[in-house]
Amino acid sequence: MSERIYTAAVIIIGNEILSGRTQDTNLRDIATTLGGWGIRVTQARVIPDIEDVIVATVNEVRARHDYVLTTGGIGPTHDDITAACIAKAFGVELIEHPEIAALIRKRAAPPDVMAARLRMALVPRGAGLIENSTGGPPGFYIGNVYVMAGIPNVMRAMLATLHTKLIGGAVLQSRSVVAYLPESAIAATLGKIQADHPQVDIGSYPFTREGRIGTTLVVRGTSPAVLTAVVTKIKAIVVAAGETPHEQE
Amino acid sequence: MSERIYTAAVIIIGNEILSGRTQDTNLRDIATTLGGWGIRVTQARVIPDIEDVIVATVNEVRARHDYVLTTGGIGPTHDDITAACIAKAFGVELIEHPEIAALIRKRAAPPDVMAARLRMALVPRGAGLIENSTGGPPGFYIGNVYVMAGIPNVMRAMLATLHTKLIGGAVLQSRSVVAYLPESAIAATLGKIQADHPQVDIGSYPFTREGRIGTTLVVRGTSPAVLTAVVTKIKAIVVAAGETPHEQE
Repeated sequence: MSERIYTAAVIIIGNEILSGRTQDTNLRDIATTLGGWGIRVTQARVIPDIEDVIVATVNEVRARHDYVLTTGGIGPTHDDITAACIAKAFGVELIEHPEIAALIRKRAAPPDVMAARLRMALVPRGAGLIENSTGGPPGFYIGNVYVMAGIPNVMRAMLATLHTKLIGGAVLQSRSVVAYLPESAIAATLGKIQADHPQVDIGSYPFTREGRIGTTLVVRGTSPAVLTAVVTKIKAIVVAAGETPHEQE
Repeated sequence: MSERIYTAAVIIIGNEILSGRTQDTNLRDIATTLGGWGIRVTQARVIPDIEDVIVATVNEVRARHDYVLTTGGIGPTHDDITAACIAKAFGVELIEHPEIAALIRKRAAPPDVMAARLRMALVPRGAGLIENSTGGPPGFYIGNVYVMAGIPNVMRAMLATLHTKLIGGAVLQSRSVVAYLPESAIAATLGKIQADHPQVDIGSYPFTREGRIGTTLVVRGTSPAVLTAVVTKIKAIVVAAGETPHEQE
């Protein structure tokens, strides 16, 4: 277990997310998966299919995080510009990767269709490949930037293969306590618990369920013993406020 | 109809989104709603509940967009720091807003609970209020930054009231054509249509439905006549590729 904290930024590339046409689910999948590997997603950006924006965003965040994961824009059409932008961000040529090209050429197609499909073989010079078990072309990585497809099931297949490539630190564990109380009923005492335990992060999330107001208290940290101590204190303040705390799995 | 393009950035504030615990849906709601008012969401950021990050992000994006909309972090607990961060970003004091405080004091509570609830009355000096029809405390705005709750139904109630506050331009309309073809089958001809019509934005989104591969082609632009011309050309290339195009509502 390392004391070092490993961080990642996620870049969701695609006009369809920013227009509201498509609901992104990739961020949540990536955050949950990396969290389990001891890597914290500390920022996400949703950006349009515009070259200058992609290049600038990639260069800004790759300097500030251990890892950058991108989704979207690696298909065969004119709006798929991610690979070219990553090459530009790294100042390297865009080349046809022989392994991907061979895979694509296995399935015959008319010349114009093949030309379009071969766009998916273009990667920045020096890039390694991210295997795609769904049968389509692979993603790629260069430096600390990992470039994946935007289609959720393809993204998940690529993400799963990164386990051996990304090094993480201590896993942030979390425990949740649910109380049918408004947040304000315990805000003061909860704030004191947070102040006394800076090594954990306590989040308070109000909800309404079947007409009842409640609060979910989420404690996150790397030490199970500290988590248990904090959860015990949280349960006690819920009891003191006249309610029964429920620990959520 | 104005020729000027109005843009907005969305800042989603909250550790629970970055940890993957919660699936954000606010971005999509905001993007769709603003789109209908002629305002384009051109960027979104998901950031943690950390003061320096919130302050820097707000100041960076408010300088570059007509509007900035934030969600999250305006409740009564220690992790609700958005109002204080916005005040800091604008270099103004955080004050108790008399109108919100009066609303909160209407419902009696023990002193420590009332103190916690009154945290929700703190706004940057000079802020105006964003009405909250769900009964809770309002959001607020200062300069071009609009600060809303993170809970989706409360966010939507606040967002609806912004219609009279945010000025938009021409509404970006969209039309979608579905074809049961792989993207690569039409990529070359589609790219030519895009090149011939720079005033529209053509997106190509592959999907698999009941085992069949298909592509949704989305055309967005402000001129209905141009949209119709482009959709007609897209339908023609789908027919030329041997399939039947379906226009989606």
